[in-house]
Amino acid sequence: CTGCCSETCFLTYETNKSVVVKSWSVGIINRLVQLLIISYFVGYVFLYERAYQVADTAIESSVITKVKGFGKINSKIMDVADYIHPPQGEGVFSIITNIITTDNQVQGTCPEVRTHLEHFKPGFSSFLSISVFSLKGRITGVCNTPVGYCEIEGWCPAEDDKKNTTTMAEFVNFTIFIKNSIRFPLFNVSRGNIQGDNFKCRYDKLTDSFCPIFRVGYILNELQQDVEKLGGEIGIKVEWICNLDEALDSCVPRYSFTKLNSPFEKNKVSKGYNFRFAKYYKALDGTDFRTLHKAFAVRFEVMVTGTARKFSLIPTVINVMAALTSIGMV
Amino acid sequence: CTGCCSETCFLTYETNKSVVVKSWSVGIINRLVQLLIISYFVGYVFLYERAYQVADTAIESSVITKVKGFGKINSKIMDVADYIHPPQGEGVFSIITNIITTDNQVQGTCPEVRTHLEHFKPGFSSFLSISVFSLKGRITGVCNTPVGYCEIEGWCPAEDDKKNTTTMAEFVNFTIFIKNSIRFPLFNVSRGNIQGDNFKCRYDKLTDSFCPIFRVGYILNELQQDVEKLGGEIGIKVEWICNLDEALDSCVPRYSFTKLNSPFEKNKVSKGYNFRFAKYYKALDGTDFRTLHKAFAVRFEVMVTGTARKFSLIPTVINVMAALTSIGMV
Amino acid sequence: CTGCCSETCFLTYETNKSVVVKSWSVGIINRLVQLLIISYFVGYVFLYERAYQVADTAIESSVITKVKGFGKINSKIMDVADYIHPPQGEGVFSIITNIITTDNQVQGTCPEVRTHLEHFKPGFSSFLSISVFSLKGRITGVCNTPVGYCEIEGWCPAEDDKKNTTTMAEFVNFTIFIKNSIRFPLFNVSRGNIQGDNFKCRYDKLTDSFCPIFRVGYILNELQQDVEKLGGEIGIKVEWICNLDEALDSCVPRYSFTKLNSPFEKNKVSKGYNFRFAKYYKALDGTDFRTLHKAFAVRFEVMVTGTARKFSLIPTVINVMAALTSIGMV
Repeated sequence: CTGCCSETCFLTYETNKSVVVKSWSVGIINRLVQLLIISYFVGYVFLYERAYQVADTAIESSVITKVKGFGKINSKIMDVADYIHPPQGEGVFSIITNIITTDNQVQGTCPEVRTHLEHFKPGFSSFLSISVFSLKGRITGVCNTPVGYCEIEGWCPAEDDKKNTTTMAEFVNFTIFIKNSIRFPLFNVSRGNIQGDNFKCRYDKLTDSFCPIFRVGYILNELQQDVEKLGGEIGIKVEWICNLDEALDSCVPRYSFTKLNSPFEKNKVSKGYNFRFAKYYKALDGTDFRTLHKAFAVRFEVMVTGTARKFSLIPTVINVMAALTSIGMV
Repeated sequence: CTGCCSETCFLTYETNKSVVVKSWSVGIINRLVQLLIISYFVGYVFLYERAYQVADTAIESSVITKVKGFGKINSKIMDVADYIHPPQGEGVFSIITNIITTDNQVQGTCPEVRTHLEHFKPGFSSFLSISVFSLKGRITGVCNTPVGYCEIEGWCPAEDDKKNTTTMAEFVNFTIFIKNSIRFPLFNVSRGNIQGDNFKCRYDKLTDSFCPIFRVGYILNELQQDVEKLGGEIGIKVEWICNLDEALDSCVPRYSFTKLNSPFEKNKVSKGYNFRFAKYYKALDGTDFRTLHKAFAVRFEVMVTGTARKFSLIPTVINVMAALTSIGMV
Repeated sequence: CTGCCSETCFLTYETNKSVVVKSWSVGIINRLVQLLIISYFVGYVFLYERAYQVADTAIESSVITKVKGFGKINSKIMDVADYIHPPQGEGVFSIITNIITTDNQVQGTCPEVRTHLEHFKPGFSSFLSISVFSLKGRITGVCNTPVGYCEIEGWCPAEDDKKNTTTMAEFVNFTIFIKNSIRFPLFNVSRGNIQGDNFKCRYDKLTDSFCPIFRVGYILNELQQDVEKLGGEIGIKVEWICNLDEALDSCVPRYSFTKLNSPFEKNKVSKGYNFRFAKYYKALDGTDFRTLHKAFAVRFEVMVTGTARKFSLIPTVINVMAALTSIGMV
């Protein structure tokens, strides 16, 4: 039977000769090895890794947020249009908790707020003190050394950001509403995080874990975070782990919170998060003037992750075959 | 031949004794099983899963958008600087289609617009009615019960967001230009979605499917979405599926559209998407006043996904070996 | 031994009969094949693919940026509040390098800046010239053909964006500070990109590759990019490749830069990136007027990717078993 072109030869079946060893010790080892292999397939491959399902983690996610609440900074009532940046309700947004304003700045020359000596100290909080190094042209060069001030050219009067201020106390009572819709493109399944139309609920991990409205104070409490020592970045994680072989109603999000700036807690820079913006005005004679705001804020980031799994025939067959082959049953 | 140190023993080859079973029935089953295995490898592993290629889905993507068009809201002509938030041409942006403005607000006290009774109805659209629950301090406590109004402290006069307004009709004629560049870092291949310099085209899935300029009305039509009942969130998907074994010119994007808020269509909250922002002014005496805008908008999200595949020797060899081994040819 | 219920039969061990072929040529081929298989497992599976570790690429990342520096545009000093959009220090931000301002625009009718004939040229840079096609209603229809202007209704006077302007020269001296924290959820490991509190450093790939402060000029130089021919989009990549079996201190980021608009370098559209925004004012009589800004900008995108690997028992055992089985040792 050398050539395989004859019909006889094509329809033969070649298999291995086998020997049966009758030995208690070898037999026990053989069965133990088979047990180990079966355990691996059942416990790890099927139950833990769920090899009978295919997974989709490439979710399409869309987040809209809406913050509510009133606070008072420098004796002015702040509403959402005042303290949210950006205003459009994005998944990443900053709530201003404190502001140092510098009113009526106009283009001109004026003395720097800091002394000349201070320029040479390492300093991060003041962009003015940095400017002497990087942009010498903006320092006019006139320095009144007895008093210790140098003249700058720019928006005047210069900002003095060392004023003492207090954090907006009402911040903890603000609420953040999160509207999140996701889609698993592999399975063409869409889900939203809102059930029903009850918008008076407040999220609580024990009593109301599906409510999409979060009190800021609750989040800070969960993170064991003192509002006065706020690092400035808080993540709100929305995690969808869905088994699409079960009822679709069980595909719900799980919320958790995380301090995004935790790696920086030992750095001085972690003390807070701030940014500057200005409101621009025009005087009657057409001169531009502005109010510079140094805003201390807390930044929230809604982070959505998702995994959906669904039974799939081919990986199931392949893995069952692999299991059976490896214990010698096929 | 017990020790393996002798040269003779090292160069021996141990193989299994095999038996050739000459049986038509067993032979046919044997060949059928081999056919099944070959089909699996050829059909699923090679053709469907493309195991001879490596895939890169970790794309670097950058999106810049530019909206054009003019509309009229409350008899004022709105241009792009008026209706786009944020203005920088990001991949996620909102086009304002309607605005309720509250002019000349100053810090002070004034009657709330809603009646006292209304506060106790569940209400999402008004942040004022929520405030009575969460921020009682801002309600001064003075309530003129016969008339039914309570006094608030804050930006006055209070907003009345129940005015009837109509959606900017010209919105459907706006165009969205999308400039998307992607890079597959594994293969160091960069691609952009613009061919040539024809910027007078309009995207049409049949006649001009590579044009990067999208008419809003076309998108709404594709989604079978009435502009008056807009849910507020539209995804523009840019999908790159590239076979880098073919000519690079065939690595082009495919566009599609999706209603991101579709999971919320049964919720009342899905009726629209709105946000508030303010424009700040200064009176001659230095008093701050503002115009509060409640903007009804449609949010567009450009979502880029990509997969590039390219031939790779090692996975091909491994899979061919696996196929041959499993049918007993190696 | 047909039934397997008897204890004797359960504890037998069935194995294949083997033949030892004593042939130098066959023996050499056998050992070479084994060597090849071992090389594949050691070299590719273990060393290259690191199959003894599990990998986590689903990082949680948070980026805060802070730009410093002063520049001069149209003889006005610009600080960070003037030239950054958005102001909150996000991972994607635009630095304005040039502005064409159109002052004192009010709602009304006025002649278009361009001639009537120009409307029919393909033009992307001017939204006015596009409007004649897409929004004919906004063109009032009054055309003073001898002079060549048509009347428009909208914010007047109309913008003339063909003015010659120069890029803010000080831009190259600006510095970008990046604060990036990441977390590998699979291993619950968090890392930040800041070591110590030295904020006077400047990033240099040779001398200070861990410094998180980047001079814009350095980035442009690395990209061999002339500031005057800037395409407008620059990616700052932060890459974390962490072997968690080593000391945690070796889990540090690597920075690199990329021209995100490189696929468009042959298109006319790549010439620059610009967007429009307006500052709104109120006249004494309550009329709204605005200053329209056409801002030419460079957009920076901080792109964070990460992979962490850690030893894991099960994949190691599986792969060692696979290696031994394939050379016939198990």
